[in-house]
Amino acid sequence: MTTTIDLNADMGEGFGAWQIGDGVDTQIMPLISSANVAAGFHAGDPTTMAGNLRQAAEYGVAVGVHPGFRDLVGFGRRHIDASVEELVNDALYQLGALRELAAHEGLSLHHFKLHGALFMHAAHDDEFAQALCRALEQVAPSLPIYCLAGTAIDRAASEAGLKRVHEFYADRDYNDEGSIVFVRKVKPLDPQAVARKVLKACHEGVVEAVSGKQVPVSFQSICIHSDTPGALSLVQSVRSALDQAGIQVKAP
Amino acid sequence: MTTTIDLNADMGEGFGAWQIGDGVDTQIMPLISSANVAAGFHAGDPTTMAGNLRQAAEYGVAVGVHPGFRDLVGFGRRHIDASVEELVNDALYQLGALRELAAHEGLSLHHFKLHGALFMHAAHDDEFAQALCRALEQVAPSLPIYCLAGTAIDRAASEAGLKRVHEFYADRDYNDEGSIVFVRKVKPLDPQAVARKVLKACHEGVVEAVSGKQVPVSFQSICIHSDTPGALSLVQSVRSALDQAGIQVKAP
Amino acid sequence: MTTTIDLNADMGEGFGAWQIGDGVDTQIMPLISSANVAAGFHAGDPTTMAGNLRQAAEYGVAVGVHPGFRDLVGFGRRHIDASVEELVNDALYQLGALRELAAHEGLSLHHFKLHGALFMHAAHDDEFAQALCRALEQVAPSLPIYCLAGTAIDRAASEAGLKRVHEFYADRDYNDEGSIVFVRKVKPLDPQAVARKVLKACHEGVVEAVSGKQVPVSFQSICIHSDTPGALSLVQSVRSALDQAGIQVKAP
Amino acid sequence: MTTTIDLNADMGEGFGAWQIGDGVDTQIMPLISSANVAAGFHAGDPTTMAGNLRQAAEYGVAVGVHPGFRDLVGFGRRHIDASVEELVNDALYQLGALRELAAHEGLSLHHFKLHGALFMHAAHDDEFAQALCRALEQVAPSLPIYCLAGTAIDRAASEAGLKRVHEFYADRDYNDEGSIVFVRKVKPLDPQAVARKVLKACHEGVVEAVSGKQVPVSFQSICIHSDTPGALSLVQSVRSALDQAGIQVKAP
Repeated sequence: MTTTIDLNADMGEGFGAWQIGDGVDTQIMPLISSANVAAGFHAGDPTTMAGNLRQAAEYGVAVGVHPGFRDLVGFGRRHIDASVEELVNDALYQLGALRELAAHEGLSLHHFKLHGALFMHAAHDDEFAQALCRALEQVAPSLPIYCLAGTAIDRAASEAGLKRVHEFYADRDYNDEGSIVFVRKVKPLDPQAVARKVLKACHEGVVEAVSGKQVPVSFQSICIHSDTPGALSLVQSVRSALDQAGIQVKAP
Repeated sequence: MTTTIDLNADMGEGFGAWQIGDGVDTQIMPLISSANVAAGFHAGDPTTMAGNLRQAAEYGVAVGVHPGFRDLVGFGRRHIDASVEELVNDALYQLGALRELAAHEGLSLHHFKLHGALFMHAAHDDEFAQALCRALEQVAPSLPIYCLAGTAIDRAASEAGLKRVHEFYADRDYNDEGSIVFVRKVKPLDPQAVARKVLKACHEGVVEAVSGKQVPVSFQSICIHSDTPGALSLVQSVRSALDQAGIQVKAP
Repeated sequence: MTTTIDLNADMGEGFGAWQIGDGVDTQIMPLISSANVAAGFHAGDPTTMAGNLRQAAEYGVAVGVHPGFRDLVGFGRRHIDASVEELVNDALYQLGALRELAAHEGLSLHHFKLHGALFMHAAHDDEFAQALCRALEQVAPSLPIYCLAGTAIDRAASEAGLKRVHEFYADRDYNDEGSIVFVRKVKPLDPQAVARKVLKACHEGVVEAVSGKQVPVSFQSICIHSDTPGALSLVQSVRSALDQAGIQVKAP
Repeated sequence: MTTTIDLNADMGEGFGAWQIGDGVDTQIMPLISSANVAAGFHAGDPTTMAGNLRQAAEYGVAVGVHPGFRDLVGFGRRHIDASVEELVNDALYQLGALRELAAHEGLSLHHFKLHGALFMHAAHDDEFAQALCRALEQVAPSLPIYCLAGTAIDRAASEAGLKRVHEFYADRDYNDEGSIVFVRKVKPLDPQAVARKVLKACHEGVVEAVSGKQVPVSFQSICIHSDTPGALSLVQSVRSALDQAGIQVKAP
């Protein structure tokens, strides 16, 4: 029986004068227990990052780094055929940049979670996943990796001796294998339906795949992407459902 | 009598497929005792940075971070009218990025030195210099600031309790006040003349200003900019002159 | 007596997944007669530009290019100390890029208007203004320059034989000299007050400066910046007031 | 019997303070008949572009635009999983930007040639190739497409009624199908061997593939990439061989 769960969302995905999604970082932050903060490659300039860190500190939200492909115009959603070495160095660069700004706000980083197409790449590419986890084991051995159970990065993190936090993707469709269907643009979702999906996953450990099949899921964190249309409503609805079900929202 | 001195140069100022100056980082590195490594805003992508860090480790060269304005096309030589908050966050971001890549190579950072127009800004603007030094005091209290004696950042670092390493700029002209003349493009220099200028500064503590006046200088490090035309010859000539004069080249 | 007036706004100031201001380009476009479209340096990627051009074509809105400083993170609001040559080349680059995408949509460009800090630079710096206007005279002699009467670029355009369209800035404060007060962040404004200010300027040819003084203004176009908070309401209010006053909104 | 041939090279592939390859644009320009000028996405800032255009004008070299993926750090050599619409808009943007700067120098563009990974993408992807050629047919119907005979873009250009100029790649290896082997890094080549390979292709219409097989080739232009190590020597050697063989070097 699940009594506590983590609720994570991507934060700080604006850039300079721009905001992402509904521009509701400020309203989502108080509702979640952990935030994945963009670190400059797909979104997030240093001052936006610092603002998010301050806000996370204010609400006691655990902060993880959210590295993506170097692709502002594509928001990190387009795969780039970069070498493993480039991608590992890019990830370390972003990790360090956020870590320094966090230190300046008196915060330690809590976790590591890849973004968008880089997240998907690490889920499927063993070579990248292993090189990344070996590097993280050296520089950030205490940071758990947020990922989908059973993916390449999940295995690689385990081999490297890194902790993992498995996620349930409240705003994504699942296929029969328990993987999520990657899309560049997500359609608006019904907040009540999403909340029911989450509670079912928490209580029964299953999700209904697009085929209608009931697929088992195992997770310690619920993810809602803040660039999903209507993200704020989704987070509010899910948070409210968890509260009413007596499931405590807390970072692992 | 000077018996040891630091010799520093900017390193890693390429970007992707591009190299700066003579593209002679590899040849300059063995001749210097400390390297200022670009961290992505005016030059230096993560993989270039990692390569430079490995090379510095190989030759036992002390590595400092070299933050600049966010301006790849202008190579950080153009002033940008950014806010103090933006500039401090930009500097921390660059510091952390390099620090993480250095940690991955088993290195600790040794110093902090600003680049180009941002270096000049910190030399003249008390508000920026003070905000920067207060931030550095929090996140990197042990890193000395490389700077020109008597500038705004020199004072601010002192007030913040940070160590300073004063520099002598071997490839720049001095004015009567002991300040250097900032130029976007430096003309080729005679390596022998530069070496004589350095030895005179080491032995007598003076430099001849453009007016012909003998101006007192105080320093613990000699700087040669690697983007000065013929930088390799300058470094070779200066290093050789120091060796022959029995002055040991060593990071502070 | 004013019977027709142009109403212009900045359009296409998003970038990739990001939108600016209220993200209401789509709603503002039908209300204006000319649009200043960002061309990639301070905002606007090619696909965003193409989308804006299609929409302008749909509503019969005249399209001008809106070049800015190369500074996405600063949204072109920060002065960069670039050379005259760099700035002229940057402006031509942006002009050509938009012109090509416009040609692809079957449109010809209608005007030229600088953005943000580059707009202000051209208002004050004779050397840049003259070099820019000489270049435009060569490549785009038929495009009028949108500007404030009496500024450096107004004079330079006149000397180069270029047409000018003088603007009235509905959402900016004026000083006693008839210049506008440049700010990096504009405060929310009362749509009714802005509409009254515009009608007074149209009917009486004066604006009340911040000092309370009545200052004469001369213009053929009213500008409302789409990144001003509540820009849509301002445009709606001004458009409605012009319609009710029987003043036709039409590009020159 | 070939009596005239075009000799093309990529030019202007620096960025800001950086130069590519040997930094020998200035020396290569007088030896070629057509130049592919980078337009800002993989290399080439506006001022670098303007400088190259002036130099091309000086030597009577025909100028084509050389659009690439938006990827400065990867120099356009890494495939990006962008949509067809994005890639077509990106190409038009780059075309227009160079065309405007060329107009300012009194030049008309002569051809269109894609760069690096985008060149390879258009060689293989019919959907992109067709969309691109349909767009070019609208905005630049007189510009021939430089490409490899028999590729997707060759077919698409033909269908769209665009002229093609088929190329022979002097510094690339061929496979048995007459395609070139794409590599991110090219090894140094023997200038004499490259010149012999070119003359053989001109005189006999064949190239020796990596397998040793003699493969037929048909072309109106010889391409030497200026970022191939030792590019200047290759161009010098090829140009000299063509001159001695009485084959006139001339843009089509």
